[in-house]
Amino acid sequence: MFYHDKKLQYKVRVDKPDPQFARALQQAIGGIEGEIRVCLQYLFQAWNSRGPVRYRDMLLDTGTEEIAHIEMLATAVCLNLEGSSSSVIETIVGNDPLMEKIVGGGDPRHFLSGGLGALASDANGVPFNGSWIVSSGNIAADMFSNVTAEATGRTLAARLYELTDDAGMKDMLAFLIARDTMHQQQWLAVLEELGHGNMLGVLPIPNSFPQSKEHQEFSYTFVNTNIDPDEPSVGTNRRWTSGPSYDGRSEFREAKAQPYGDEPMLAPPKPEGYAQTEQIEKAGKKN
Amino acid sequence: MFYHDKKLQYKVRVDKPDPQFARALQQAIGGIEGEIRVCLQYLFQAWNSRGPVRYRDMLLDTGTEEIAHIEMLATAVCLNLEGSSSSVIETIVGNDPLMEKIVGGGDPRHFLSGGLGALASDANGVPFNGSWIVSSGNIAADMFSNVTAEATGRTLAARLYELTDDAGMKDMLAFLIARDTMHQQQWLAVLEELGHGNMLGVLPIPNSFPQSKEHQEFSYTFVNTNIDPDEPSVGTNRRWTSGPSYDGRSEFREAKAQPYGDEPMLAPPKPEGYAQTEQIEKAGKKN
Amino acid sequence: MFYHDKKLQYKVRVDKPDPQFARALQQAIGGIEGEIRVCLQYLFQAWNSRGPVRYRDMLLDTGTEEIAHIEMLATAVCLNLEGSSSSVIETIVGNDPLMEKIVGGGDPRHFLSGGLGALASDANGVPFNGSWIVSSGNIAADMFSNVTAEATGRTLAARLYELTDDAGMKDMLAFLIARDTMHQQQWLAVLEELGHGNMLGVLPIPNSFPQSKEHQEFSYTFVNTNIDPDEPSVGTNRRWTSGPSYDGRSEFREAKAQPYGDEPMLAPPKPEGYAQTEQIEKAGKKN
Amino acid sequence: MFYHDKKLQYKVRVDKPDPQFARALQQAIGGIEGEIRVCLQYLFQAWNSRGPVRYRDMLLDTGTEEIAHIEMLATAVCLNLEGSSSSVIETIVGNDPLMEKIVGGGDPRHFLSGGLGALASDANGVPFNGSWIVSSGNIAADMFSNVTAEATGRTLAARLYELTDDAGMKDMLAFLIARDTMHQQQWLAVLEELGHGNMLGVLPIPNSFPQSKEHQEFSYTFVNTNIDPDEPSVGTNRRWTSGPSYDGRSEFREAKAQPYGDEPMLAPPKPEGYAQTEQIEKAGKKN
Amino acid sequence: MFYHDKKLQYKVRVDKPDPQFARALQQAIGGIEGEIRVCLQYLFQAWNSRGPVRYRDMLLDTGTEEIAHIEMLATAVCLNLEGSSSSVIETIVGNDPLMEKIVGGGDPRHFLSGGLGALASDANGVPFNGSWIVSSGNIAADMFSNVTAEATGRTLAARLYELTDDAGMKDMLAFLIARDTMHQQQWLAVLEELGHGNMLGVLPIPNSFPQSKEHQEFSYTFVNTNIDPDEPSVGTNRRWTSGPSYDGRSEFREAKAQPYGDEPMLAPPKPEGYAQTEQIEKAGKKN
Amino acid sequence: MFYHDKKLQYKVRVDKPDPQFARALQQAIGGIEGEIRVCLQYLFQAWNSRGPVRYRDMLLDTGTEEIAHIEMLATAVCLNLEGSSSSVIETIVGNDPLMEKIVGGGDPRHFLSGGLGALASDANGVPFNGSWIVSSGNIAADMFSNVTAEATGRTLAARLYELTDDAGMKDMLAFLIARDTMHQQQWLAVLEELGHGNMLGVLPIPNSFPQSKEHQEFSYTFVNTNIDPDEPSVGTNRRWTSGPSYDGRSEFREAKAQPYGDEPMLAPPKPEGYAQTEQIEKAGKKN
Repeated sequence: MFYHDKKLQYKVRVDKPDPQFARALQQAIGGIEGEIRVCLQYLFQAWNSRGPVRYRDMLLDTGTEEIAHIEMLATAVCLNLEGSSSSVIETIVGNDPLMEKIVGGGDPRHFLSGGLGALASDANGVPFNGSWIVSSGNIAADMFSNVTAEATGRTLAARLYELTDDAGMKDMLAFLIARDTMHQQQWLAVLEELGHGNMLGVLPIPNSFPQSKEHQEFSYTFVNTNIDPDEPSVGTNRRWTSGPSYDGRSEFREAKAQPYGDEPMLAPPKPEGYAQTEQIEKAGKKN
Repeated sequence: MFYHDKKLQYKVRVDKPDPQFARALQQAIGGIEGEIRVCLQYLFQAWNSRGPVRYRDMLLDTGTEEIAHIEMLATAVCLNLEGSSSSVIETIVGNDPLMEKIVGGGDPRHFLSGGLGALASDANGVPFNGSWIVSSGNIAADMFSNVTAEATGRTLAARLYELTDDAGMKDMLAFLIARDTMHQQQWLAVLEELGHGNMLGVLPIPNSFPQSKEHQEFSYTFVNTNIDPDEPSVGTNRRWTSGPSYDGRSEFREAKAQPYGDEPMLAPPKPEGYAQTEQIEKAGKKN
Repeated sequence: MFYHDKKLQYKVRVDKPDPQFARALQQAIGGIEGEIRVCLQYLFQAWNSRGPVRYRDMLLDTGTEEIAHIEMLATAVCLNLEGSSSSVIETIVGNDPLMEKIVGGGDPRHFLSGGLGALASDANGVPFNGSWIVSSGNIAADMFSNVTAEATGRTLAARLYELTDDAGMKDMLAFLIARDTMHQQQWLAVLEELGHGNMLGVLPIPNSFPQSKEHQEFSYTFVNTNIDPDEPSVGTNRRWTSGPSYDGRSEFREAKAQPYGDEPMLAPPKPEGYAQTEQIEKAGKKN
Repeated sequence: MFYHDKKLQYKVRVDKPDPQFARALQQAIGGIEGEIRVCLQYLFQAWNSRGPVRYRDMLLDTGTEEIAHIEMLATAVCLNLEGSSSSVIETIVGNDPLMEKIVGGGDPRHFLSGGLGALASDANGVPFNGSWIVSSGNIAADMFSNVTAEATGRTLAARLYELTDDAGMKDMLAFLIARDTMHQQQWLAVLEELGHGNMLGVLPIPNSFPQSKEHQEFSYTFVNTNIDPDEPSVGTNRRWTSGPSYDGRSEFREAKAQPYGDEPMLAPPKPEGYAQTEQIEKAGKKN
Repeated sequence: MFYHDKKLQYKVRVDKPDPQFARALQQAIGGIEGEIRVCLQYLFQAWNSRGPVRYRDMLLDTGTEEIAHIEMLATAVCLNLEGSSSSVIETIVGNDPLMEKIVGGGDPRHFLSGGLGALASDANGVPFNGSWIVSSGNIAADMFSNVTAEATGRTLAARLYELTDDAGMKDMLAFLIARDTMHQQQWLAVLEELGHGNMLGVLPIPNSFPQSKEHQEFSYTFVNTNIDPDEPSVGTNRRWTSGPSYDGRSEFREAKAQPYGDEPMLAPPKPEGYAQTEQIEKAGKKN
Repeated sequence: MFYHDKKLQYKVRVDKPDPQFARALQQAIGGIEGEIRVCLQYLFQAWNSRGPVRYRDMLLDTGTEEIAHIEMLATAVCLNLEGSSSSVIETIVGNDPLMEKIVGGGDPRHFLSGGLGALASDANGVPFNGSWIVSSGNIAADMFSNVTAEATGRTLAARLYELTDDAGMKDMLAFLIARDTMHQQQWLAVLEELGHGNMLGVLPIPNSFPQSKEHQEFSYTFVNTNIDPDEPSVGTNRRWTSGPSYDGRSEFREAKAQPYGDEPMLAPPKPEGYAQTEQIEKAGKKN
């Protein structure tokens, strides 16, 4: 079963709110390359797992980590929809002419349906679709699907990194890109354990994104989200927690999950968004 | 962020595997009344929350609990797809003529696409759709949507209870129905705090399902999934953790989340499902 | 069965056509909070109704009213896509820089697929989806779903009201918001009749929208769309046609449906939209 | 705007309830060839109409008639889900082994999600999709789309006729098939008025269905659903209300809409469907 | 079975790349009026054909031609996403203020998910949907559906022609519009052979688009994509390859398929799109 | 551009028609692991290709081959829907009790919507969805997606092989499984050329399916569908047309595409399916 705390896995800061970037970020939440997809895909693969227990545990660990990534990105969308102005209109608009042109304005449903909140859909407002969850019962097929998801996901994150010059957003994306670097390789480790040859060379995908820009302290660490301190049991030897990484640049290691971010603090509801009166009055209060 | 252990929130036992019931259970996983929907709906409402912090925490607690419900149901689907026979064909077929007629055979994708695993779709194989996630920015609207989800969800669970005579499945559903009883009322508690009158009388929905059949020890308990033992902080007074329940039959209370179930144990892959050879050979082994 | 006349339920006037607002209005036509959804939801609940006849009739009355709301909004979309300019390009563009930024330009399919007409989709062009229709067979669950639909619908309408400064559009929305005020309460009346307590306080949702802005003469009136003058039969006592309203501000009453609007008059097709030649030549002619 | 009475356009009688046929009927409700599609398609074409007013009126008349067809089919689904047995299980199952094999059992969501009610989806449970609504702004393109809809719709109805031997269902389908015969031809009449040649010979599509089986008294009559007795105005000359029919077998005529069916009477909710207690107790009562 | 060469059916040239027009073109690729739909619709009708063989062959010929149209449009999207600038941002933006306003900026997924490539979706990013494929088993119904597809398709192409002033794009569209002129009529020829009267007058739909603008040398030619030089066999008499065209303006004729375009040459990947390093280094090289 | 002949790539024979197996085959046509998906995915990757030309050509070759696979499977569905009986009801039903139980009866839309023809949807009638087409602009990500598609596709084909005991169907599937063996490896060859290590050991996925059952003469042959006899040009050296295969069992080779099957011959339309009269009369005739 599952647990939570109130902090983010990594800090989410937005220096200059940008509703158009909020729209672009939706692709990483509800798109086919996004975090809802990988979260549910790894969890379903774990829950359906009939093979060696070691892979079930691993899938559960990483599937659980991905929930925290959806949380980070939803928080980032919310923060990008805020603004210092008193007018919701100016808030939605933002001031970045380039971004506005690229993504074609914000997603109108961020305001109309969400009241300045994130949606379970992609950058065009197309809803997340459960057909994207691959859990085939064949672990090699599943691992190739997982590498694909992390490869397209890291490519997407790199492109989002390119689209923004907000230091806070670049910092968050540098963390997520690093996690994708690790996740690509841990699925390949399963393939190697199953008899697949090494995959040196093309990694991490995309290999044209300078790794100096990612937070490399997180790029080779398997994050163990199990609250039981004795999991995995002593002596368990797993290829994805030790030994050289597949991109030849580091060593795999393991760490118990812990939050590097804080409890998120969103701005109170704007009057123009028509929250309940009580929400507006009590916003920011503990009780 | 999020954590897990390896056990189920409540025990999932299938005495007589029944692939047709597996198909029916899918409605509770990936249907509009299902657990993926409530899980993501409560989590998005939490992440998008700009109102009083007390509601954000509550949504996070219950959204996290719902992940464990998807896990239970996915496990139940897997177990219902198993069988003692050596033939995948007999496994899929099952032996219950009534169930077979009602749901019209199993979902062929349980075998074709899942290799005897659960899918992120409904009882007709229609994929989960992100458009069902309501997070409007208005907490009263959201709470009505949440009560709706728990009311249709409990109705669905009661109908599933009616469809099976497997003692293990009835036991699991009695737990889930009890949790829906609680969840309906905790969202109403928010409405009461916001000024809404009491809702005695119609609860729990459906009120025609005999409450003696549900596990009532779980029907009035708010499950706190926060791993921080100091959350909520001392002295926090919340309507959904104390005081009389809205159906007039008990008192609300609170408990830290803990698993009542065990680590799930699925049967090894059937040869006819074409897992990788190594999965079949090492199935059930720890490493 | 069903009938029509050629007039609108309430007048639809657009002083300054605005294609971006046309796009935003689509959410109220084909979105999950929109009028196609409530129309079909109430009609299916009526057609599937096995409970007391009084609720079947009520659902039929209001489901029929909602068709007229789709009609009003489709007309509003068409009028917002018109313009005095001879160029379809300028027509589509409009002149409101703020709106353009918020909704990110018009929906290109309004021109490409509709020839300046409304679509059965939401503000992002995502098609209406029948999975949104809730008709559960449990009337309490259905009524909570109906309140949700009217709560999110009224919140959407209030946000649309905020987005426009066109006097005609504000007038139309003030009518629709008033109808949502009534509809929220009439579903709650069913719950009260079934034993639910009162719901004073939070209503209407959102309660932060100033009711002085809505056309309050329509806010507490049940509209009877039955063409039979003897329906309902004499002596029928229904909670939603008399007695104090649930928001404590007025008394419920009933009126036979009648059009307050005129027959809609759209501009002729633009040459650039490539209607048939005969359409362009005979546009506006009676025969 | 729109009105209703409480009767069906034509009588809906089910002699032997058959849940499998209920599933097949769903294709005619929520499938791409179904009645929700034609209803919304004709209404959107009317609301978006910028061409000669005569076509707008005609589309409004027939779009309104189609609502009554959805109503008839939803009633037929409900009646087919009923049974004299006290057990919901036997009710769902039915007794027709051939039908059961053809459609593969009933739709499990008829029970799980609908409590023995109709859904807004097709025979496989796939939801109605708004993308099917064609309203292109070019009337010739739209009329070809309308003929297509009535041709595939009549083919579907003929196949449903073939699948059942229930006299009540055959009677209902004979009416609907006759209406499709008329509707195909009235859209062709618009094309003729616009300069298109005659279309004798292939009509009605499918031309292999014996017209002796359809209720031919309804096959050449334009049904005017306008409640205004003076509509159309005196002297209006329209090709689809007089002159020889396009299949060369009769004359077109016009009639004001009137119900040939009665107020539908469904059985009370089954206990196993978990309606609210009050629904079960008061079912069938007027108040 | 199927074959290809490396050239385009007709030349695709973009003089001034325009990402917003790329978005609009997507409607002709993945929209309901688009080329994926007609391609699959004609091929499925051919594969499912049980009627006279002559129609199976014809459908196969034209279904195969349509693949080449998807190819042309995908190439056009790619070319419109390119630019002389070194910055992907400027590339996406383009310089046409009118187009930008009409379509509301480019599709952000062209960059985020496609790395400046075409998608299998419509102008709003809504994915192509297989439910649009009509293959009913009744050839008259199918032919009306095919005429509808070509009528709405030609209307769409005419509107795209209106939206651009790029000479290369107008040239490509003039070819595609001409092919739609032919395709509309060849489906009508089937109807005539089956006994349908002539259809002079309304054709081609839309008849308001000046035919002088289309490449009329392609407007009345049936393109035979069969690689067997003896197909069709000598003496085969088919209405769609000889005799007067249905719009009364020319004679039908037939030609073996041949490319009028060249092998497409796209620009190398932009660094900002994060292709693999090797792709960027070797782009444009033969091996 | 594209061409065709009238023969199948490999013979499609059905000894004992089985409508339930027709339903299962739909997963391989319109499911996420199916042939429409790989066909469009490879073609879009080719059309969007900005990298080395050698990969564009390869994608075009294989994408074109996949159209022939859809054709084979659609033919197989049609043949499985036929029968010697004069009754469409018996035709649909078939006689295999095991299959009937597994897939739960046929797809009712095969008869209702298709008149005994294939659909563009999966084994549950869920339509093909364009969101499944991955063309990311990063060739390594794309190749991992392609291997995934062929790995899940081969797993699906092996499961279909398991479900049938029809010798004709097993023969067809043995061919398709062999092609998947080749296709998996050719995408890996691209990865190797880009610097990826070898992948010996896990291949082909699933490795538990006995390769003796597949038609191994097709398992290591790259099929060149280009009609130009000089393509590829002399001296082109490509890893996927020579050298040891990645599963260590053979050598790669290349062959020009040629049909091993015949022109498909379907049975005439059944009267109960309501084709046009002329279709039924002229079925099987050349003209």
